[in-house]
Amino acid sequence: MSFELPPAILNEVKNLYQDTIVAPATTPGTGAISIVRISGPEALSLADKVVKLSSGSVSGADGYTIHYGEVPGLDDVLVSVFRAPHSYTGEDSVEISTHASAYIVQEFVRLLLQAGARFAQPGEFTKRAFLNGKMDLAQAEAVADVISSTTSASHRVAMNQLKGGFSKELSLLREQLLEMASLLELELDFSEEDVEFADRGQLLALLDRTLEHVERLAASFHQGNMIKNGVPVAIVGAANAGKSTLLNALLGEDRALVSDVAGTTRDTIEETLNLDGILFRFIDTAGIREASDKVEKMGIDRTFRKLSEAEIVLGMVDLTDDIESQLQAICSRVSFGSQKLFLLLNKADLLSQEDVNKNVIYINNFVSSIDNKVSTIILSAKDGSGVQELKSALAEAEKGLIPNADSTFVTNTRHYEALLNAASALRDCRTSLSAGIPSDLVAEDLRRALASINAILGTDLLDPEVILHSIFARHCIGK
Amino acid sequence: MSFELPPAILNEVKNLYQDTIVAPATTPGTGAISIVRISGPEALSLADKVVKLSSGSVSGADGYTIHYGEVPGLDDVLVSVFRAPHSYTGEDSVEISTHASAYIVQEFVRLLLQAGARFAQPGEFTKRAFLNGKMDLAQAEAVADVISSTTSASHRVAMNQLKGGFSKELSLLREQLLEMASLLELELDFSEEDVEFADRGQLLALLDRTLEHVERLAASFHQGNMIKNGVPVAIVGAANAGKSTLLNALLGEDRALVSDVAGTTRDTIEETLNLDGILFRFIDTAGIREASDKVEKMGIDRTFRKLSEAEIVLGMVDLTDDIESQLQAICSRVSFGSQKLFLLLNKADLLSQEDVNKNVIYINNFVSSIDNKVSTIILSAKDGSGVQELKSALAEAEKGLIPNADSTFVTNTRHYEALLNAASALRDCRTSLSAGIPSDLVAEDLRRALASINAILGTDLLDPEVILHSIFARHCIGK
Repeated sequence: MSFELPPAILNEVKNLYQDTIVAPATTPGTGAISIVRISGPEALSLADKVVKLSSGSVSGADGYTIHYGEVPGLDDVLVSVFRAPHSYTGEDSVEISTHASAYIVQEFVRLLLQAGARFAQPGEFTKRAFLNGKMDLAQAEAVADVISSTTSASHRVAMNQLKGGFSKELSLLREQLLEMASLLELELDFSEEDVEFADRGQLLALLDRTLEHVERLAASFHQGNMIKNGVPVAIVGAANAGKSTLLNALLGEDRALVSDVAGTTRDTIEETLNLDGILFRFIDTAGIREASDKVEKMGIDRTFRKLSEAEIVLGMVDLTDDIESQLQAICSRVSFGSQKLFLLLNKADLLSQEDVNKNVIYINNFVSSIDNKVSTIILSAKDGSGVQELKSALAEAEKGLIPNADSTFVTNTRHYEALLNAASALRDCRTSLSAGIPSDLVAEDLRRALASINAILGTDLLDPEVILHSIFARHCIGK
Repeated sequence: MSFELPPAILNEVKNLYQDTIVAPATTPGTGAISIVRISGPEALSLADKVVKLSSGSVSGADGYTIHYGEVPGLDDVLVSVFRAPHSYTGEDSVEISTHASAYIVQEFVRLLLQAGARFAQPGEFTKRAFLNGKMDLAQAEAVADVISSTTSASHRVAMNQLKGGFSKELSLLREQLLEMASLLELELDFSEEDVEFADRGQLLALLDRTLEHVERLAASFHQGNMIKNGVPVAIVGAANAGKSTLLNALLGEDRALVSDVAGTTRDTIEETLNLDGILFRFIDTAGIREASDKVEKMGIDRTFRKLSEAEIVLGMVDLTDDIESQLQAICSRVSFGSQKLFLLLNKADLLSQEDVNKNVIYINNFVSSIDNKVSTIILSAKDGSGVQELKSALAEAEKGLIPNADSTFVTNTRHYEALLNAASALRDCRTSLSAGIPSDLVAEDLRRALASINAILGTDLLDPEVILHSIFARHCIGK
């Protein structure tokens, strides 16, 4: 998706970036190839100073071609040439493959710095892509999300944002806001002539539609955050009920410290697991019991806090212990309605089948009186039976998080807050419009909403000009 | 350097490699770009199955061109196309840049495997380069050395080997051996006709020259090994003399456990440091004293072993303790003549200048009676004074290890052993020739020498054919 800055601002930022930057684009080490990236007005000529091509020169090469060359005394390299604007940054760029040696990369970068390049700041290639109009700010932010995604769900959401899906929705909102703003400004400009251009009823309808859209996007943050950072799942239960053993069984490795001594887990332990493309974040917690020392007391306080933030609670019931008190302790801590509870009936292998059945009936009766959507799963955390069933149940419970290729989810706190601000401004705007407040004050609210949306896209400097442009382009009144 | 296998063998190995391999060529993670490499007869068409170019197809693309494309639902990518034989492996190859995401790389590789590629074995791209005659075995082995080089010296030696400098010397040796062998074989073939082609005096001169060359190469292993793995420097001295503190001062960080309790360092600690382009491997050792427990005793045994392997011994003298007994303990362990000793006079800051001077004179007198090349350096391991002087002295002592761009050093144990075998065969050959042993037995020794050299280059399957070829090509006798 292409995105244009006004020429005045474009020139200003371009002046800031007359230098040519260099940085390794890969982690040198265990691979076969390392890539060093150069971008800026002198990228091609700087490459020529350091790399001797076997024929021709980098400066003379076409874009999208590869050339074999040598950094004398250092390495044989492949040089990929990109010419502005057809590059990642939109500038002349060169990507050079060397052997994946930390020494070679370091020496090669040193030679380029000597030749006049500057070492790039973190993210500067993407920053330049933004400043050169190759992507907007929301897309630029998605680059980091794409790189760090570890599940199909989070990858899909980040990729949609990178490819401009989110930006497209924001652009739509921006157009609607601009339309409303320009109508109101016209009313304002011509107020002395008693012209009323803006049909306030039509404006209100447009406003409601826009507000609903903004609120829908903001609401997607809850899910977006879970897709990006994992669905928080708290494992709770009495001390020594087998919570750490369950976490190990889920992860298939000995992550949590396990012992027979009650109260072993003092700190909370978080581990993520990809189940059917959805990331789950498991939080092992200190056992719920009266703590005997201060440090353990802190662990238990943390347990209660983590528990309140969880989307799903796994309540661990030790079938060999007093069941009623365990159930009461667990259920008293769950926010039924907003949290999903799975009761995991552990240590069934230590009881007769008859006793297990009796207990299950008792437990089902107990919980169905509180919430009829509680699931119970019989398992043995120790030998792993029932763990696969639990995994499937978790994935099933959150399958709504698997996005379509073009679903938009807000995953970035900055975007979320900007959307909340926009919604708040639009609600103010609505109140003012309904109350018949003069249009100049209403326009002020609209500008606030627009500024919030623009901030997400990185165009927050532009609004006065854009509004004027919008007025004259779309509402030409023959003057 | 190009290197040709005979057509029969070439076809045989080519049949083994009709499949197309894929593997990531970079470590995904903290970088910006990941590269996935595909090589083999189907490389281009497999890429077309997974990547949709924005125009045209990979199969239709010229070599050494770059194309923008999309892996639908996964990522936007850049595809670099290489056509046989102009690629690293010598086969059709494709290198695809994706965002540096572990998830994307994993999914992308999965798609390519699904499309019919095979996951490459470790080193298989380089193995194919060897099998396709793009490099010989010694060059292929140098690839790993180039990647792991951390100093200018080791990089230069590995690069010289990769670029064929070592192979060129071996090829020269091979030619000389072939010349001798063919002369001897002719003598053998025509022995019934009483023809004596081989002038044994001339043969002996050639043999001596060749043997001297092989021995020179084998002898370079001592230095080559130090260039590659670091010059071993043992830090020895009485318990609590400040050895671990010195190691920390050298490295500029708290690597070794330091305490005031004598005998803290039980195991040996090795750390490498790049001084003026040469790698030094520092070995902190258990203090030389009577051990009070068994574990510490083992540490002290290891100290003596490490000490005997060191190129340089740093003898740490605590100026505040009994100096004579410390000097005797250190000097009794150094192999003067083959090892270089630096006496480090530590804790000078705790004495008056007058006492320091007195001690220095005493120490210099003591050691000059044993070896007049012992260096003494006054330092404080604790506050770092004198440490820079020590670093400079170490770099100066080993500056002979800085190779010229075209110096050949043997750094590979396999090569070293093959050269030792070749030298041994040539010495046997010399003995036989001098003793007038029949040429067929002498030829056997020459074949052993040749086989050893060929094994380094990876041509050990070839010798009977090559010798025949050599006879008929260079000594045509009109038959």
